[in-house]
Amino acid sequence: MEFPSKLIENAVIELSKLPGIGRKTALRLTLHLLKAETETTSSLAEALAKMRFEITYCRTCHNISDTEECGICANKLRDHGMVCVVSDIRDVIAIENTGQYQGVYHVLGGVISPIEGIGPSDLNIDSLLIRIPDSEIKEIILAISPTMEGDTTAFFLSRKLREFPEVNISTIARGIPMGGELEYADEITLGRSIVERQRQAK
Amino acid sequence: MEFPSKLIENAVIELSKLPGIGRKTALRLTLHLLKAETETTSSLAEALAKMRFEITYCRTCHNISDTEECGICANKLRDHGMVCVVSDIRDVIAIENTGQYQGVYHVLGGVISPIEGIGPSDLNIDSLLIRIPDSEIKEIILAISPTMEGDTTAFFLSRKLREFPEVNISTIARGIPMGGELEYADEITLGRSIVERQRQAK
Ligand SMILES: [Zn+2]
Ligand SMILES: [Zn+2]
Repeated sequence: MEFPSKLIENAVIELSKLPGIGRKTALRLTLHLLKAETETTSSLAEALAKMRFEITYCRTCHNISDTEECGICANKLRDHGMVCVVSDIRDVIAIENTGQYQGVYHVLGGVISPIEGIGPSDLNIDSLLIRIPDSEIKEIILAISPTMEGDTTAFFLSRKLREFPEVNISTIARGIPMGGELEYADEITLGRSIVERQRQAK
Repeated sequence: MEFPSKLIENAVIELSKLPGIGRKTALRLTLHLLKAETETTSSLAEALAKMRFEITYCRTCHNISDTEECGICANKLRDHGMVCVVSDIRDVIAIENTGQYQGVYHVLGGVISPIEGIGPSDLNIDSLLIRIPDSEIKEIILAISPTMEGDTTAFFLSRKLREFPEVNISTIARGIPMGGELEYADEITLGRSIVERQRQAK
């Protein structure tokens, strides 16, 4: 594809780096911005940069947060005895959208993946283990996508959590298709899989 | 959809303003940027802002151009006796990509649309009429999408162009489905419709 301008070409190149956006779509988006008010583009560019550079994370659960402690951790009405462990912030958003879960979270920031060179020390696992002693935590729900990497991570975590026999460990019910990504599950399936979570044998 | 952060929410809102991008996709893109290096976001934000604020147009044909005269107008190997009139810059890109056209262009910047309040004076029509006298222009190809607005615009232009009986007027062959948008045509159809353009009766 030939571009009449380097500025257009650069915008298309940068937009095509986004997942699911090919060159043709990127060009459409670029030409759309070109036709719209300049403010549309400046608002977009600013919102993206601000989001990326000013974002902070909850010191307790590593969820995204505009404050030191996220809204969920700070909410006294939530059940702080129940911690749902997820790999990613998207999973928090997905589970929150089901409206079925009243506990708190712990965001690992990924899954163990030897191929991608991600080991347990690259994830927020230590901070989870530190959260437990002297806390009111009674149950930890492993809500990790049932993929190979997810299962490895869940297995690793269950072994680590044996240190705390007073805490029950459960995994979300396999209403989610095997090999499926958590975030793509519909809200009903995901909500039910939380409610019908399975206690794990110790 | 609830967002854990205003920064995320703003990014999602701005991205969802783009055509074809819903809230779910916008959230995916936002979280993708959040996970990627900060440079991915800054390059994207900069490329978009630069594109929008620094873009300039060819003084002759109104195509996008990084210089006063666009690469097509400045190219002496192109046939300057043939002007292809299009409504939009995307159409220039689409026709250039067919590799079938060696003439130059004139970009109207839209089509006549009473509903959207776009009249002939809002388009680059006068500058087309000014280009003709004392030029080498022998043929003007009206390559406007055969929609209702496009046909109205083509009709208006053909009447205006009667002023210049020495210039032949043609329209692109209707290989393009009626009511179809030019830019969605595949390259072969679009290329052929240029080659097999129909000379218009005066
Ligand atoms: Zn938190
Ligand atoms: Zn030009």
